[in-house]
Amino acid sequence: MKRGFGSDNHSGFSPDVLEALIRANDSHALAYGDDSVTARLENLIKETFGSQASIYMVFNGTGANVLCIDAMCRSHEAVVCAETAHINVDECGAPQRIVGCRLLTVDTPDGKLTPELVKTRLHGFGFEHHSQPKAISISQPTELGTLYTCEEIKSLADLAHSYNMYLHVDGARLANAAVALDCTFKEMTTDLGVDALSFGGTKNGLIMGESCVLLNPDLDKDMLYRRKQMTQLGSKMRFMSAQMECYLESGIWRRNAEHSNRMAQLLKTEVEKVKGVKIMYPVQVNSVFVQLPREVWKHLQEFYFFYDWDEDKDVVRWMCSFDTTEEDIMNFVAALVEIIEERPR
Amino acid sequence: MKRGFGSDNHSGFSPDVLEALIRANDSHALAYGDDSVTARLENLIKETFGSQASIYMVFNGTGANVLCIDAMCRSHEAVVCAETAHINVDECGAPQRIVGCRLLTVDTPDGKLTPELVKTRLHGFGFEHHSQPKAISISQPTELGTLYTCEEIKSLADLAHSYNMYLHVDGARLANAAVALDCTFKEMTTDLGVDALSFGGTKNGLIMGESCVLLNPDLDKDMLYRRKQMTQLGSKMRFMSAQMECYLESGIWRRNAEHSNRMAQLLKTEVEKVKGVKIMYPVQVNSVFVQLPREVWKHLQEFYFFYDWDEDKDVVRWMCSFDTTEEDIMNFVAALVEIIEERPR
Amino acid sequence: MKRGFGSDNHSGFSPDVLEALIRANDSHALAYGDDSVTARLENLIKETFGSQASIYMVFNGTGANVLCIDAMCRSHEAVVCAETAHINVDECGAPQRIVGCRLLTVDTPDGKLTPELVKTRLHGFGFEHHSQPKAISISQPTELGTLYTCEEIKSLADLAHSYNMYLHVDGARLANAAVALDCTFKEMTTDLGVDALSFGGTKNGLIMGESCVLLNPDLDKDMLYRRKQMTQLGSKMRFMSAQMECYLESGIWRRNAEHSNRMAQLLKTEVEKVKGVKIMYPVQVNSVFVQLPREVWKHLQEFYFFYDWDEDKDVVRWMCSFDTTEEDIMNFVAALVEIIEERPR
Amino acid sequence: MKRGFGSDNHSGFSPDVLEALIRANDSHALAYGDDSVTARLENLIKETFGSQASIYMVFNGTGANVLCIDAMCRSHEAVVCAETAHINVDECGAPQRIVGCRLLTVDTPDGKLTPELVKTRLHGFGFEHHSQPKAISISQPTELGTLYTCEEIKSLADLAHSYNMYLHVDGARLANAAVALDCTFKEMTTDLGVDALSFGGTKNGLIMGESCVLLNPDLDKDMLYRRKQMTQLGSKMRFMSAQMECYLESGIWRRNAEHSNRMAQLLKTEVEKVKGVKIMYPVQVNSVFVQLPREVWKHLQEFYFFYDWDEDKDVVRWMCSFDTTEEDIMNFVAALVEIIEERPR
Repeated sequence: MKRGFGSDNHSGFSPDVLEALIRANDSHALAYGDDSVTARLENLIKETFGSQASIYMVFNGTGANVLCIDAMCRSHEAVVCAETAHINVDECGAPQRIVGCRLLTVDTPDGKLTPELVKTRLHGFGFEHHSQPKAISISQPTELGTLYTCEEIKSLADLAHSYNMYLHVDGARLANAAVALDCTFKEMTTDLGVDALSFGGTKNGLIMGESCVLLNPDLDKDMLYRRKQMTQLGSKMRFMSAQMECYLESGIWRRNAEHSNRMAQLLKTEVEKVKGVKIMYPVQVNSVFVQLPREVWKHLQEFYFFYDWDEDKDVVRWMCSFDTTEEDIMNFVAALVEIIEERPR
Repeated sequence: MKRGFGSDNHSGFSPDVLEALIRANDSHALAYGDDSVTARLENLIKETFGSQASIYMVFNGTGANVLCIDAMCRSHEAVVCAETAHINVDECGAPQRIVGCRLLTVDTPDGKLTPELVKTRLHGFGFEHHSQPKAISISQPTELGTLYTCEEIKSLADLAHSYNMYLHVDGARLANAAVALDCTFKEMTTDLGVDALSFGGTKNGLIMGESCVLLNPDLDKDMLYRRKQMTQLGSKMRFMSAQMECYLESGIWRRNAEHSNRMAQLLKTEVEKVKGVKIMYPVQVNSVFVQLPREVWKHLQEFYFFYDWDEDKDVVRWMCSFDTTEEDIMNFVAALVEIIEERPR
Repeated sequence: MKRGFGSDNHSGFSPDVLEALIRANDSHALAYGDDSVTARLENLIKETFGSQASIYMVFNGTGANVLCIDAMCRSHEAVVCAETAHINVDECGAPQRIVGCRLLTVDTPDGKLTPELVKTRLHGFGFEHHSQPKAISISQPTELGTLYTCEEIKSLADLAHSYNMYLHVDGARLANAAVALDCTFKEMTTDLGVDALSFGGTKNGLIMGESCVLLNPDLDKDMLYRRKQMTQLGSKMRFMSAQMECYLESGIWRRNAEHSNRMAQLLKTEVEKVKGVKIMYPVQVNSVFVQLPREVWKHLQEFYFFYDWDEDKDVVRWMCSFDTTEEDIMNFVAALVEIIEERPR
Repeated sequence: MKRGFGSDNHSGFSPDVLEALIRANDSHALAYGDDSVTARLENLIKETFGSQASIYMVFNGTGANVLCIDAMCRSHEAVVCAETAHINVDECGAPQRIVGCRLLTVDTPDGKLTPELVKTRLHGFGFEHHSQPKAISISQPTELGTLYTCEEIKSLADLAHSYNMYLHVDGARLANAAVALDCTFKEMTTDLGVDALSFGGTKNGLIMGESCVLLNPDLDKDMLYRRKQMTQLGSKMRFMSAQMECYLESGIWRRNAEHSNRMAQLLKTEVEKVKGVKIMYPVQVNSVFVQLPREVWKHLQEFYFFYDWDEDKDVVRWMCSFDTTEEDIMNFVAALVEIIEERPR
């Protein structure tokens, strides 16, 4: 397939990951996480996120998010999240089916919750007819490519805790946020009071590597059973753990994220020069959301795969990957320009 | 870890699989199964199991089994299976949680259902207080390393269909059964009337490669949504599909299974020479179940990891893998003999 | 407790209902709906709603709504409803837990969906990441005491069917709507294309009598099992069926609803005379929503129990029952006036 | 319908219950259990079962059992019960669907668990692949009409607690057991260490009155939400609570149970005189299980409704109710005798 801007999971994997996989393929190992690679990873997570942190490798982002929600909420409880949150829009109702809980959604201008927005859903405590708010879930970066500052996350964590609730971060692209904010993973999660984290690497150069990282040890109960029962326990776990270990140790998390973020800036810069294309949100990580005439983006899709984000409003999403090249961008923008110029006025 | 006989998922992966992975890491590809590797696999599955067959790649055996059950049953329905079935014993209740259905279990002497045994659970049709039997599930080979003949499977399929029920095969080790029975995958499933198959490769040399294969096209409804919602949809699916394609095309399914089966025969032959060790079941594929004095197997576990199967009865399980060597076996049996001979009488 | 305006389920039951109960207490009867009273009711429902209609008695409105949703949707599907819908707000997440599906909510000015509003949620068909819209659910009358015209319902049914979806009506107070619209139950449901109906009597003079009425026979599958498994099958069902039969046959559904609607009109008329109290929505059935100064409604609550509906906006709900008297209203409004007049300006 | 021996829920309700209902129909009352009748019942339950006891009224036995299980277990946990237990056989899989947990069943000769039988299922603690045993559930009396002695219950409670598990009693017919054992409800539950009780009255003269009674206050968490979300919260709860209050206060629980137990003894005595009919289990409460020639019981069913219990073994169940008369029994046995004597030899 032609290289494009459809998603950061359209790219393959980094060479380092292959090396890690080969290293892990060393004789026999206990299955289901009782292997030495996973043991090393568990220590590495404590180094990375603080000594109270624990990691549960899972297969995909849905698994990570659902396991995090399951750790925080029972079925009669609820998660406050943005209307645009992946857990709300893009899991085909997995939290509802697997955990049985409600999501209490809030409209946001930019994919970001604020304490004020969250408070609009903090009602009905103690009223048995209403699902009880028990967690706030944010995506960092958001599905719209925007970022929370550390202060903003702290204020949401403080709000959550003041209501005896938890704060969850969907960090499928946490590395992109970390390099953009120039802080460590710990500084942007544990130190701010984040309780549970979906920590992913698949979109940033791994073959498959997602995890539920619990930062609040109170949540760390029955997790092995819960993961198993929701079908997210891998047998040859060393091969997933090895990827995640490599991700953190080799620095590819940073290298890849820095690159894709930089490519998004370049894409934004080039696209800004094109008339008739409007950048929708601040480009803070590796995605660029633009609004442009329907016939243009429909025509461009004949050459490049990408998602319309809001068809009614002619907003589409372009994402850069760890392997996006400057040439990819120049070719793409050239194609865009050509389509626009060819249009009858 | 020392090479041993704990499980066939303690071994790593075959070199061919790595090659397949590298080949699949070619530029960009659509995610979630819309890639060309998965498309090729879908065709290959039709060649392998018949033109009506469809495949849904999932992450693990639990996912495959639960997705198959979900395709066959609604929550008020039930699956008849052996008491020893993996879906009953070893999924931590995943079918109950995810599908919400009951399993109707039957005690068996050797892990195998028969029409007579199944019929003991075929009651209460039309009676709303009882879960309605809707599927029979068997494991081929069974969890006890025994095999169904093709005639036996056919008779179960016929029974199922005569009650408007389905037959599911948990084929986590189907390759081992295929080489033991010397028949094709199609001859041992589709041609016998099997409706749904959990088809796995992880235990036989893949890194991770399990699937739900539907042989009855009536079941093939809403599967994409159901897989996604139960958290079993992989993003970079090409890397799972590539493994499964390699598994079927390169012949490693056969090569590896032949080898592990042969090693189990060798292990059995050597163990039979040891006094005080009783072989529990016919050794038909790659596992050997033995009964031996408690102090012996407990002592042996200090050197080799393996599971007790029935602690009360001192039955343990030894499994051979695609990478088990004759030397592994000789060393293992030597250790066993040494322990036995050292014992005070 | 002092008679008031807290809810129409604060009132007791009509004398006719007691007579029906006593009549049904005649010797022995088969349990679980296989009794002659329930058989008569099933016929009566066909007379009332059309020959294709079927009824499943359940215990409460939550049971009726969840059973209706369960008949229409599987877990990967979704129900479009108003943000204010009882199924969304007041079931503590029962649809999510029991059916496992999503609710796609829409903000409305008056609790009423329109085709335009519904269409904002009709996206993502065929996209496995998104729950698939499969039903529209409306409340008639709405939770805000407003009414759909028959034409409006028909347009929603037509929209639903054009998308291969179903239309559900939460008719916990359907009688109040029927007398307000002056049409038969059939004219306001079956004849408009409604597929499934939660048909209740508890709020209108029964002790306990709610039901799931299926008007689209395609939905009438496995209902006995589904009702049982979700804990909604009553053993001595004749005593529930007798109430519902009495409800329909004796005319108390009409008598009671006419009365409570008329009382709401009186209440509205009297309240309109009071300065500082704003009627929020058209008073079309038996509820009056008003906005008034916080200290006034808080003070009034010391004498009368009623719910604040939107505390932030100082909107409260007053409901009339089948047993509300003119004197009740005059006393209530007098108390209201007294509080207002006593206030320091 | 002809009076017979089909079930104790084929009979109607006691006159006292009607009086209680009428008394409760007094003006307005808060809904959902915030009424004064329910408050009185809550106190009465503390008087009856001890000061730590709490009651949650539900609609039926399924609701009571599932709510009790939900209070004791999460989805990855399991309940050990007899194969014949109502929760296993007769709830159409409600525990599996609503709680998502497994039931670990044990074959019993007489419907009664013993510590030895339970221990056969107490394996796999700490092993994430296995559902974790968390509760023992017994029926008192059992589904086979047999009784546990207080000592037997205590030994099961002790066993449960030694494994950090709970003991649940399905007491749909607890009154029949209480009069047979001649002890108070407290003596047979709380005092023995029972943690949770399904306490029912419907089969013993109520219209509808079942409840979840928690005796271990550690379990009493989130119960209001859990009950609501599983669809078991009644609006006009005073009318259910009034029945249960009447049941306990008026002495009808004792009067009715004494009567039905006595009638079962009479039935047993009369049936013992009939050749070819074998009493299967000790007749300890209000049911008689007999084995008799197939053509006989099939013929008898033409005149009287009753359930075959084990069709293959020609075992049927005859139940006496609070309203069974000696004449009923004499007529029934006469019909039985006539059929037997008419048979060709």
